[in-house]
Amino acid sequence: MSTPHTAPAAGSLVLDAEALYRELLRGVRSLQTASTRLVGVASGGAWLAERLQQDLGLPGVPGVLSSALHRDDFAQRGLASSAQTTLPFDVNGADILVLDDVLYTGRTLRAVLNELFDYGRPASVRLAVLVDRGGRQLPVQADFAAARIALPASRSLALARDAAGAFQFQVQEV
Amino acid sequence: MSTPHTAPAAGSLVLDAEALYRELLRGVRSLQTASTRLVGVASGGAWLAERLQQDLGLPGVPGVLSSALHRDDFAQRGLASSAQTTLPFDVNGADILVLDDVLYTGRTLRAVLNELFDYGRPASVRLAVLVDRGGRQLPVQADFAAARIALPASRSLALARDAAGAFQFQVQEV
Repeated sequence: MSTPHTAPAAGSLVLDAEALYRELLRGVRSLQTASTRLVGVASGGAWLAERLQQDLGLPGVPGVLSSALHRDDFAQRGLASSAQTTLPFDVNGADILVLDDVLYTGRTLRAVLNELFDYGRPASVRLAVLVDRGGRQLPVQADFAAARIALPASRSLALARDAAGAFQFQVQEV
Repeated sequence: MSTPHTAPAAGSLVLDAEALYRELLRGVRSLQTASTRLVGVASGGAWLAERLQQDLGLPGVPGVLSSALHRDDFAQRGLASSAQTTLPFDVNGADILVLDDVLYTGRTLRAVLNELFDYGRPASVRLAVLVDRGGRQLPVQADFAAARIALPASRSLALARDAAGAFQFQVQEV
């Protein structure tokens, strides 16, 4: 990456993660109510939730959800990720806004919903993401997406953070 | 119900279940591929899947999913429903189209997805419903809905079937 805030994605497409973050902040403001609790999916979504918590002036820290234990490819992957779920509030009756960097097949979302319900029965769960890249394999959706793009299945897309804490997208051939 | 095919829903709204079924049939045709397997959510969705299987000229019988074991209010409800899950094909790698009569909070959908994944890892799961009544509490969506309507939370909406097998909607104050 030659510039700190942008990364080439597919062909001429440039995904400016910092610009998308500002759009996400605007979207989350519009979804937010007095009782909304932010919860980020590890790792990209957790970084987003952390920064949103600060930019929205919310007290305390956001929750973190790990998809590791409920993934439907658990048998293949095992516990590769060291991220652990932390929910610093009572999930029962809570209005939860889940943050993630990329919505793709929907399998991660199913996994983190199950992880969340292991902790209690929320009143509502909504989802806001930086990028919806299509390619859904489950009937799930984001309530807000800062960008909707089409990417070939041969490319992986994930959020990264540089030493200064600025967001970048990492695109790789898989 | 004074007429066999229609039922008053909310105020002046009339939901003609047979007309919506014909629209659903059209929608399911557009979603269908050579490998699509129909699976209905008991009980309304199972009736729809049964009739679609016939009207689409598909061999064999559709699958049935019960939400009873995975509901997040299982502790309150218990096993009230006697419907049991039957999946007459290998779920692993299958392209599944789930049918349901009404999409509302999304909690039933989460339950039946978990039920389905207990049997294997499908390649894809899509959802088609007769009516999307809004009021979502989870970030799920239907790939096709024959109608989208708003109903007060005080009304329940469910599909019924008369002695001749014709569909009607039952609307009740709850």
